[in-house]
Amino acid sequence: MRVGLDVGGTKTEAVALSPRGEIIGRVRRPTGWGSDAVIQSILAAVAELAETVGFAASDIETVGIGIPGVVEPDTGQVLHAVNLGVESLDIPGRLVGELAARVRVANDVKAATIGAASLRGEAGSMAYLNLGTGVAAGIILGGDLWHGAHGTAGEVGHISVDPNGRLCGCGQRGCIEALCGGGPVARAWGRPGAFPIRDIFDAADAGDAQARELRDGLARAAAAAVRVLVLTADVEVVVLGGGLTALGERLEREIVESLRREGEGSAFLTSLRLCERIEMLPAGSPAAALGAALIGADRRTSATGGHDTEERAALRG
Amino acid sequence: MRVGLDVGGTKTEAVALSPRGEIIGRVRRPTGWGSDAVIQSILAAVAELAETVGFAASDIETVGIGIPGVVEPDTGQVLHAVNLGVESLDIPGRLVGELAARVRVANDVKAATIGAASLRGEAGSMAYLNLGTGVAAGIILGGDLWHGAHGTAGEVGHISVDPNGRLCGCGQRGCIEALCGGGPVARAWGRPGAFPIRDIFDAADAGDAQARELRDGLARAAAAAVRVLVLTADVEVVVLGGGLTALGERLEREIVESLRREGEGSAFLTSLRLCERIEMLPAGSPAAALGAALIGADRRTSATGGHDTEERAALRG
Repeated sequence: MRVGLDVGGTKTEAVALSPRGEIIGRVRRPTGWGSDAVIQSILAAVAELAETVGFAASDIETVGIGIPGVVEPDTGQVLHAVNLGVESLDIPGRLVGELAARVRVANDVKAATIGAASLRGEAGSMAYLNLGTGVAAGIILGGDLWHGAHGTAGEVGHISVDPNGRLCGCGQRGCIEALCGGGPVARAWGRPGAFPIRDIFDAADAGDAQARELRDGLARAAAAAVRVLVLTADVEVVVLGGGLTALGERLEREIVESLRREGEGSAFLTSLRLCERIEMLPAGSPAAALGAALIGADRRTSATGGHDTEERAALRG
Repeated sequence: MRVGLDVGGTKTEAVALSPRGEIIGRVRRPTGWGSDAVIQSILAAVAELAETVGFAASDIETVGIGIPGVVEPDTGQVLHAVNLGVESLDIPGRLVGELAARVRVANDVKAATIGAASLRGEAGSMAYLNLGTGVAAGIILGGDLWHGAHGTAGEVGHISVDPNGRLCGCGQRGCIEALCGGGPVARAWGRPGAFPIRDIFDAADAGDAQARELRDGLARAAAAAVRVLVLTADVEVVVLGGGLTALGERLEREIVESLRREGEGSAFLTSLRLCERIEMLPAGSPAAALGAALIGADRRTSATGGHDTEERAALRG
């Protein structure tokens, strides 16, 4: 049995794959806060999955875990998973004695990229653009995840598209992430709420000027990320996922509208057919947990992630 | 004998490769204007090369030709090579009867990318950033040129980095090419000269305010292109080439300075060590002709170029 987990800031999702790679079971539990609670959440999700599907812990061959934060490629050590209250956590080490299976850990965007590519079922080129608290992409070229030379492949969130734009946590101005990351946009909005981006969209619909500006900026920056991915890596498709895509069609419409508006002034951009090259993961897509399961089962060592460093993650803000 | 040609706006360079891939001969001639003259320039360069090295035309097995413009991947048809006065030219067809060798044609930036990678002698990842009349890059991933899904891989020149920037020929504002392409920058300068970018650098050194603004904008945009390539494709090295690099260290210094200045405000950018990851082709590097020779000798059909279309090239401006 191959198991995959997506450990998110609020919930942990686990899937079990059949030998043919089909998802035969799926459970979802809240994620605890801090290293010990994260480990407990993982174990509880695996136990619930085993009970639901009806297999024993000893039937599990591999476990793959996708998690937000920097994952050291060699050790699987997780660093700076700030949304989980984790500064440093050796997940494989902590699971020794608890799970007999081989455990591998990967960055959640990389896991979701591999999962989204598997769900699409095509071997060509694709980018997965994660619009969450932060913004980053994973790139599939020739059917494989492109890791890059130093772990920054797909870090489009920190490309500046406006020298006079909002200050980013990374120290630059006008970064794509500063304009369309859920975290920075919520801070710019400055009002409390469980899902501030939805509040912004609601207020924008109701005519609030600040909300309209934030919503338009968010859509423009997400559209810019799509253009960067197509004009640099020339991927066939950009799949949108991440927390912000809980807004579904409301978000997609704004991004498509922004792509179209920019295209109006540029026949070159129009010729790229960008509006037709974006897809959004459906709400509740198991892409990240599926991708984690596939990474867990992958025998190649390169699947755990790039070569990002502790320092860089801290600096990216 | 494998021959490669770089057909540029002013000169045509030809190289001959030994069976081991070493350049054993090299000639340079002016390029004629218009389709017929371009064909004559190619034939004259090959004849001069044969005479210089001492081989017969019948010894030539393959000819690769790098040329600015759009190259149809299947036919080798060249479209919109505006700097050569060529609207449409079937080079392989026109050389039938003149050369017995197999002829293949590729976009000059793609040829230079392959040539630069070969000269560097490493199989890893690399981008070649061509700073010429226009701005475009070629990307080597895992040792091979990445063609992309639709022929726009490396088209970083048309990524906008300033919504209020100069209008680009492609219809967008603030494109990297609008700010650091030799053509657009010379037009913004607006004074005649054989090498307007050198005039701008000279005038900037002499304190001219407009020239300083243009030079600084050029360096900033080239630096932005480097960041886009590293943050998206995460190539190990960005090699700078193209007509503007005739300025040599004067240009490199400005770009390095711009990268450093941006890095000052961002520890994240500093951690990427971008200043150490750029290299400039030496003046007179045979990269493009060498790359053309390698493409000519390559048996894989994908080596001629991407799948760019006539329409898109016309629109890019």
